[in-house]
Amino acid sequence: MISYETSQNMISLLSIGNLRSERVFLTAALGRVLAEDIIADSDYPLYPTSAMDGYAILHSDLGEFDSLEIWGDNPAGADEVGGVMSGMCIKTFTGSLMPQGADTLIPIENVRVEESQIIIEKPVPRGFAVRPIAESYREGEILIPRGTTLGFAQIGVLAGINRVMIRVAQRPRVAVIATGSEILDVGETMRHAGQIRSSNSYTLQSLVQQLGGEPLQMGIVGDDKNDIMERFEEALRSSDIVVSTGGVSVGDYDFVKHIVPKLGAEVIFKGVNIKPGQHVMVAQRGSKFIVSLPGFAYSSTVTFILYAAPLIARMLGVANPYDVIEATLKVPFAKRSNKSEFTACNLTFEDGRYWVDFEGKKTGSSAILTNLLGNSGLMICGEEDGDLEAGTLVRVIKL
Amino acid sequence: MISYETSQNMISLLSIGNLRSERVFLTAALGRVLAEDIIADSDYPLYPTSAMDGYAILHSDLGEFDSLEIWGDNPAGADEVGGVMSGMCIKTFTGSLMPQGADTLIPIENVRVEESQIIIEKPVPRGFAVRPIAESYREGEILIPRGTTLGFAQIGVLAGINRVMIRVAQRPRVAVIATGSEILDVGETMRHAGQIRSSNSYTLQSLVQQLGGEPLQMGIVGDDKNDIMERFEEALRSSDIVVSTGGVSVGDYDFVKHIVPKLGAEVIFKGVNIKPGQHVMVAQRGSKFIVSLPGFAYSSTVTFILYAAPLIARMLGVANPYDVIEATLKVPFAKRSNKSEFTACNLTFEDGRYWVDFEGKKTGSSAILTNLLGNSGLMICGEEDGDLEAGTLVRVIKL
Repeated sequence: MISYETSQNMISLLSIGNLRSERVFLTAALGRVLAEDIIADSDYPLYPTSAMDGYAILHSDLGEFDSLEIWGDNPAGADEVGGVMSGMCIKTFTGSLMPQGADTLIPIENVRVEESQIIIEKPVPRGFAVRPIAESYREGEILIPRGTTLGFAQIGVLAGINRVMIRVAQRPRVAVIATGSEILDVGETMRHAGQIRSSNSYTLQSLVQQLGGEPLQMGIVGDDKNDIMERFEEALRSSDIVVSTGGVSVGDYDFVKHIVPKLGAEVIFKGVNIKPGQHVMVAQRGSKFIVSLPGFAYSSTVTFILYAAPLIARMLGVANPYDVIEATLKVPFAKRSNKSEFTACNLTFEDGRYWVDFEGKKTGSSAILTNLLGNSGLMICGEEDGDLEAGTLVRVIKL
Repeated sequence: MISYETSQNMISLLSIGNLRSERVFLTAALGRVLAEDIIADSDYPLYPTSAMDGYAILHSDLGEFDSLEIWGDNPAGADEVGGVMSGMCIKTFTGSLMPQGADTLIPIENVRVEESQIIIEKPVPRGFAVRPIAESYREGEILIPRGTTLGFAQIGVLAGINRVMIRVAQRPRVAVIATGSEILDVGETMRHAGQIRSSNSYTLQSLVQQLGGEPLQMGIVGDDKNDIMERFEEALRSSDIVVSTGGVSVGDYDFVKHIVPKLGAEVIFKGVNIKPGQHVMVAQRGSKFIVSLPGFAYSSTVTFILYAAPLIARMLGVANPYDVIEATLKVPFAKRSNKSEFTACNLTFEDGRYWVDFEGKKTGSSAILTNLLGNSGLMICGEEDGDLEAGTLVRVIKL
């Protein structure tokens, strides 16, 4: 069995080929990952622009004149904007271009209007309330680098530079296969007590979606070699990554581990010194990957996060699928094995720090998916770590 | 002008009526907000279940016999599971029901098989590798409380209890209107230098989506009283919240602030002592809300976050639209006004703490949307705060 660190290195060294991109409409780009650098094609603003409602003036007039003649009106969006000469001003609104000659905007609140003149009551410094050329950005500046997940601010900036179509990373297609004769799909009638309701298919489908992939739900296949083989072939033809659950342990009905090599896939590794999920297997066939996870709900979720999520992130051009943060143990932690352990914990933020505790988390088998409910993280303990005292700084995968 | 704190209290006291819910399919529930408590309708597991591949035994036999007769095979999902009596064992696999009588599972790795018998090489404690009844949860336990945003673990748990349809909060419908004769939509041809490309519509639409609302894009309307009035009426008929940008300041073309009261809406407040966005206005007509934001891109985004986002969250039954966290200033901060200030900052997590700096952030007008790119947060400075030294703990809205 290889170590966790070795397994992660092997994942990061897998050749996943060039990034594949597609063009989508701006309004469909939210949450997608940018596949091009977004570069400003002009200064913004391109001309000096008013930042308030007021009067455009020459600043040098402030010491010279007690009042200035209002020479006109310059609403935002006006086509023709007149010029300002000494002794005069033009009423100018937020977002309007500054009139030629004017270098300062004196706000409405700072003047008194008497007939066609303004009397300055409170002067302002030169350039006041004028957005200078390129206040926001300069032509040629990289506004948004490739690999950025597009949020509201990115979408707004893209709109502001008139980008209608955006090049984003294609969503990797991830097929999800649950194996096990005991597994019953949601909505199916339970016929006897030995059946177990499927949760893996839905947990993993949701993880794929949250990570930006496109799930392909292949459903459940019983412990039958031919059926499993056929389902895997179908999945490989249709997807970039095939994720399966079950069939990788040491039991007589664990067929997946035997079938994957027979599909012509090269096994990258099988078995990692981790808890849960030590039987996890990663294989590659051409440009496609197979990530075979254990069957228990908590094990399959954790090993998906450790092994499938980084592949999805790499295909999207994203650096890391999850943040790993430092947190402080509130309570002692008893390590249970000499493996790298990934333990569901409560992650809270108080007094400027993240804290870890295990209140309400159940110990027991690796079937307990409910341990991942709430504000949960995955605490990482290394192979070499022993029991940990309260107050220890630990690393936590923030989910 | 009221204070920021007063404005937030007024928002939290607005009557938004009862939560409105709908039922959606499990696979459409990811990211939605739960509108019912999810309660376990039975123990899980309902019977003792094997957690490994091995042999089901009576633990009391371990001291009595050197070997145990293999009495049969119990694959996962089997309908009929035999019983185990003293001196015998049944081969039992991960996920299988434990045979009647057996109280312990001895793993495959701990025995040697000789013909039809197993020889125990490494004993285990009583109950080893058996998932006891209700290991995951008990009947009647609240598994997921209402108000939870459904993530991968929640979807998996819902599948595990066979929930096909889930009651979730309806998405509040939020109409977005951008006002201003200078504003040009994305893709439209710019005819002269006084025109400004729309970004607000797209920024706010994206924010609505990220918060779990359903945006209704009403587009741009010029500075014309009748046009604005008609567009608002249409928006009010179609949505729960109408968000507008522009037209609330002191200029001659700022019509929105005059029109909203004429629509029969009660103005809750107009003007808050904040920077940016002091002219923000919130009004209510029946069960509907109008949130009128300033026109500049940074101002409208910040005031949306402060005033529209909490309304959306309340309609969804979510406690807070954003986390407000404590962070440490890396550099001094010069306060620019005696208002509550919301300043775009870089938010990083290092050495177990969040840090704030302003590297690459531009000072200037409140038009600079690009300041919200990257890992940005909104640093909150209170009215009473003055300049802040490096090392000060500050509150930051995590975006």
